[in-house]
Amino acid sequence: MKKHNFNAGPSILPRIAVENTAKAVLDLNGIGLSLLEISHRSKDFQAILDETMGLFKELLNIPAGYQIIFLGGGASTQFCMIPYNFLNKKAAYLETGVWAQKAIKEAKFFGEVNVVASSSDKNFNNIPKNFTIPADADYFHITTNNTIYGSEIHEDMDCPVPLIADMSSDILSRPVDVSKYSLIYGGAQKNLGPAGVTFVIIKEDLLTRVERKIPTMLNYATHLKEPSLYNTPPVFAIYTCMETLRWIKGLGGVKVVQDMNIRKANLLYDAIDNSKMFVGTVEKDSRSLMNICFVMKEQYKDKEDAFMEFSKTKGMLGIKGHRSVGGFRASTYNALPLESVKALVDAMQEFESNNA
Amino acid sequence: MKKHNFNAGPSILPRIAVENTAKAVLDLNGIGLSLLEISHRSKDFQAILDETMGLFKELLNIPAGYQIIFLGGGASTQFCMIPYNFLNKKAAYLETGVWAQKAIKEAKFFGEVNVVASSSDKNFNNIPKNFTIPADADYFHITTNNTIYGSEIHEDMDCPVPLIADMSSDILSRPVDVSKYSLIYGGAQKNLGPAGVTFVIIKEDLLTRVERKIPTMLNYATHLKEPSLYNTPPVFAIYTCMETLRWIKGLGGVKVVQDMNIRKANLLYDAIDNSKMFVGTVEKDSRSLMNICFVMKEQYKDKEDAFMEFSKTKGMLGIKGHRSVGGFRASTYNALPLESVKALVDAMQEFESNNA
Repeated sequence: MKKHNFNAGPSILPRIAVENTAKAVLDLNGIGLSLLEISHRSKDFQAILDETMGLFKELLNIPAGYQIIFLGGGASTQFCMIPYNFLNKKAAYLETGVWAQKAIKEAKFFGEVNVVASSSDKNFNNIPKNFTIPADADYFHITTNNTIYGSEIHEDMDCPVPLIADMSSDILSRPVDVSKYSLIYGGAQKNLGPAGVTFVIIKEDLLTRVERKIPTMLNYATHLKEPSLYNTPPVFAIYTCMETLRWIKGLGGVKVVQDMNIRKANLLYDAIDNSKMFVGTVEKDSRSLMNICFVMKEQYKDKEDAFMEFSKTKGMLGIKGHRSVGGFRASTYNALPLESVKALVDAMQEFESNNA
Repeated sequence: MKKHNFNAGPSILPRIAVENTAKAVLDLNGIGLSLLEISHRSKDFQAILDETMGLFKELLNIPAGYQIIFLGGGASTQFCMIPYNFLNKKAAYLETGVWAQKAIKEAKFFGEVNVVASSSDKNFNNIPKNFTIPADADYFHITTNNTIYGSEIHEDMDCPVPLIADMSSDILSRPVDVSKYSLIYGGAQKNLGPAGVTFVIIKEDLLTRVERKIPTMLNYATHLKEPSLYNTPPVFAIYTCMETLRWIKGLGGVKVVQDMNIRKANLLYDAIDNSKMFVGTVEKDSRSLMNICFVMKEQYKDKEDAFMEFSKTKGMLGIKGHRSVGGFRASTYNALPLESVKALVDAMQEFESNNA
């Protein structure tokens, strides 16, 4: 049976990226060594790193004056590196979900945090509007896509202070005006590659805003001096990122991918909105194109387990909603094919006609 | 031509581990998903993590009261996590090379550092003896194997304070009396797996010795509470570690591997000691079984480049010495077969008979 991988991350990757990675693990470009056995100081790896950084810059149209670095430790490590490097006195944060809350928690170790707005009172079912970013903040931090709750900031906002964005779960899903951001970061394990590598796109002039002493590995200056090579980088994970970026380029770029994502999301959101049984959990203008959350309407709540079981017989994987929301979550990242969304919609409609 | 991979790290891995990893990238255990596409919260990954931790504990005979965690960020991140968590007032360090110096540098951010001994005056060509570990130190830090200089601490020392060891380049190369250590850590990319994962073996009662506030990701307590699963771990790298540990177990365990390593190292050190042309750089009782450093004797110094070129025609890879030492370095990690060492010795002898 065909599996439909709706995992929230680590998640589905382009098949060609997976196959080429497996080949490189056996023998990298016919050099007689595994990708896992080459030195990170070798010309073979330098070529991989250069191509990965080059494609990233090309596909996101990253302007001059920005660097890309690949690090370990996950976005969670960035939650503390950002205030360590940039929070002098006060930072502003937008609270849109659990990951934003975790970022806020780390910032509080280093200084004052101004939460400009929060949707916590509505279980994060929307992106707050009408907030004021204090002009004296050292930076403003946003989480552009909220994986758990299925909300997303769709536009690159104007910001009076340096704008920092966690784009773990929507990077490369749409064109981004990088020039509006001072720092963009995220774990790779959704649209970019496997777990084990974190990307950081950083505007060089952001450095360094604080007086405090910063441990070497936590100091962005260290990594800007030797991009991704201060210490041994996650060679393998970077390779798979390169293959994924090649795939995006082959499709025609990020705008093409965005169109595919809109088509997939519309198909599923339309099915939800036209259903007697299912209902979306997020306010319409805040809906994510990456993580689509829905539950059963009140009168059908007792059917949720049955639908979960039914969906498994149709090959659906990873559609159980996060415990904070319940119900269902379909993650429709770049590499998820339209046919998987169609199969899910078919399963929902079949279940509804049998049970509603 | 057969390649002989003497890379210092990332380095040669067991072929069976490489092949099984490539298979898992294509399809993990026939589940219809790539290893790269499974959730780190899935039962599939939990089984991998459990087996990896179980084999690690079994092969190193790790006593009760210790936990193993797998993290990102490399040993370099541990250089700062260790003092962040444990340096209250004063820590003691043994200075045996560049990596020890880097660890010392990070500790100085957090408190007083007592360097109990150093071999820096002799370009780290030996492990210092006859040093005193201050009884009032919060811990004593050693680097058991010095990858760049080719020296190694071969015995598990008695220590009046918690003993912390960076075993990045000799973990699993010999049996270790783990009970003598409070914390052992290292990058995986020599004897354990690919680049991208760091192992930490930590005695639970070590926590927590300091008053300072520690950012969440840098706090060992975070990772002990949810071992390797506080945030998304490097799934792929952990899988390859599991395959490498399976291979060690299949060989008969770490003692068998140690015997193989001694045989390989003796073969090469004997060839060096019996050579008219080559000479070892490290004092005999401090010689590493993992990284064997040698140069040309003074009268043959001008032949070094020629030997480097000659060795390449014989399939040798990665034998150029680190710039801090010069000459040659053959890294003879667990997975390097005896035949590669024999081939290197043959090449050295052939070159010598043609040029000495």
